[in-house]
Amino acid sequence: MPAVLTAFADSPDRGRALARDFRVRWALEELGQTCDVRLVGFPELKTPVYRALQPFGQIPAWQEDGLDLFESGAIVLHLAQQYPGLLPDDRAGHARATAWLFAALDTVEPPIWDWDLARMVERHQPWHAERQPMLEARIHTRLQELSQWLGSKDWLEGTFSLGDLMMVTVLRRLNGSRLLDKHAPLARYVARGEARPAFVRAYEAQKAVFDASTVMMTGKGPAK
Amino acid sequence: MPAVLTAFADSPDRGRALARDFRVRWALEELGQTCDVRLVGFPELKTPVYRALQPFGQIPAWQEDGLDLFESGAIVLHLAQQYPGLLPDDRAGHARATAWLFAALDTVEPPIWDWDLARMVERHQPWHAERQPMLEARIHTRLQELSQWLGSKDWLEGTFSLGDLMMVTVLRRLNGSRLLDKHAPLARYVARGEARPAFVRAYEAQKAVFDASTVMMTGKGPAK
Repeated sequence: MPAVLTAFADSPDRGRALARDFRVRWALEELGQTCDVRLVGFPELKTPVYRALQPFGQIPAWQEDGLDLFESGAIVLHLAQQYPGLLPDDRAGHARATAWLFAALDTVEPPIWDWDLARMVERHQPWHAERQPMLEARIHTRLQELSQWLGSKDWLEGTFSLGDLMMVTVLRRLNGSRLLDKHAPLARYVARGEARPAFVRAYEAQKAVFDASTVMMTGKGPAK
Repeated sequence: MPAVLTAFADSPDRGRALARDFRVRWALEELGQTCDVRLVGFPELKTPVYRALQPFGQIPAWQEDGLDLFESGAIVLHLAQQYPGLLPDDRAGHARATAWLFAALDTVEPPIWDWDLARMVERHQPWHAERQPMLEARIHTRLQELSQWLGSKDWLEGTFSLGDLMMVTVLRRLNGSRLLDKHAPLARYVARGEARPAFVRAYEAQKAVFDASTVMMTGKGPAK
């Protein structure tokens, strides 16, 4: 029985591969693995049946023989531990790559997410503009530190790993804003990630889902 | 050579075991392992030497023979993979416990941290009071979902794991607020974690560090 990944039927990111199921799609492509994709709409995320699989009603969830799994970080780590390609074999290299996985999710993503969440839910509040410099300063601090570490390396530990995969997905949320522009080495780092063949294949797959959902809802093709 | 954990010389949590090095201390006690503790002050966190060990200038960092590691999630996971006690042996149990580690850090902690951060840095801003209900609502949503999952179980997957260890440290940030009171099963879950002998030993060890720092700085003993 093939493994099953749940993904948004109609992603709020409008096909830009910012939804967290994309992390799993990309990891699978890097690892040369496939899965079935089950598309779910927002109402289904609230159901007891889905909550038994994903206690917080989020995507993605992952189902394979004998195991239901949730949290994009946990799913990507689990896959990288099963198949070669995203984790070095040696104990220290394995641990270092995993440290970057956690750094992406727990140190770099929070200020980026807070800034994006404020744009989504507080943009019409009177304080929104005044809070922006503080939210942006937190992001710049992390980007400066990350850029300092990266230096002239292609990847965080020299060789591409699941830490880079996660970090690139986290930084991509800044695409289209001017926040990444001030950190040119990181913009190039993101571009290197996006140029990987596995990224491109995963991107096209999720884009096809979004485009199909647009066709279904409007009867028209996606916007050019 | 014994492993070395870096911890705050003078923790801003005032000995309440909310600093992230506590997670590693507790894990070590659960695993029956010891380490040396190196205390660092805030100025040292900014130095290039420390940044080479911890790129974001945070605590904790972890140094063992042939490996420097950072991010509390990565350190706890690394330790749990080396020594028995915090991860089930079977593949599925291992993955499920790890999912809860990520859920604690990436789904439950962010709204709790945002609320605490707002108290720390925005409490004198004119919008602080008005944003509170939104910040608290995000926390309650996650606590409700977590409580629903926990049900009448003692631990998230039945048996105590590193997922519970991390979740309890995340929820403890709400101790002393009224936010946890509305979710009695979770308050009892936290109390069960705090009653574990390994927790108590780790708590006393970090408290002794804070008390000693208080003596050094004031010449007096800690407040009773």
